[in-house]
Amino acid sequence: MSASPIAATPEPPYYAVIFTNARTDGERGYGAMAEKMVQLAAQQPGFLGVESVRGADGAGITVSYWDSELAITKWKQHAEHQVAQRLGREIWYADFALRVAKVERASRLVNAQGATA
Amino acid sequence: MSASPIAATPEPPYYAVIFTNARTDGERGYGAMAEKMVQLAAQQPGFLGVESVRGADGAGITVSYWDSELAITKWKQHAEHQVAQRLGREIWYADFALRVAKVERASRLVNAQGATA
Repeated sequence: MSASPIAATPEPPYYAVIFTNARTDGERGYGAMAEKMVQLAAQQPGFLGVESVRGADGAGITVSYWDSELAITKWKQHAEHQVAQRLGREIWYADFALRVAKVERASRLVNAQGATA
Repeated sequence: MSASPIAATPEPPYYAVIFTNARTDGERGYGAMAEKMVQLAAQQPGFLGVESVRGADGAGITVSYWDSELAITKWKQHAEHQVAQRLGREIWYADFALRVAKVERASRLVNAQGATA
């Protein structure tokens, strides 16, 4: 296994942005922009963490966590992120859904012996 | 691309269960149980859809959608699902986080020309 895919979020409540997507064919600069956006998001006020997985078939789910709806709105409006969003709609994504949700409770597997917190 | 990875959910509000995990090494019956649980979940009252992606490094995100917190609680308590949960904690998962969230708003890319709904 590589590093844990799980974001170290605080106790709820907080917000999640669930971004499920299908990539178009071809790289076309996607990987570099995706990495840049994760780094930029992590610098924004209210950012709590991000989890991201892409499958071999091109399907991906990225969940970012934020301390408020205002933080999500401000990140959506960030100038560099706006450019990435436009390119995403026009070039990189064949399909996507974006859902904003309020996390109400959370649990975590603490170890491999079956304990949960 | 394969079939769309995106669940056809209704207008918000509804609930999401965000299950982020890291697999242990080895198959050990995981794939068959995962498929069985998706099929069984889809038969439960209040189930709205599921999205699931696993990366080459063993990290996975599965988001299931439900019409109420009660539906989530009942699915958690389902006898066959309880068996799967126990095996998950003991055998299949090196780490996981499970978050229950209320989806408040959603948008969708309608086509590859940049329109969103």
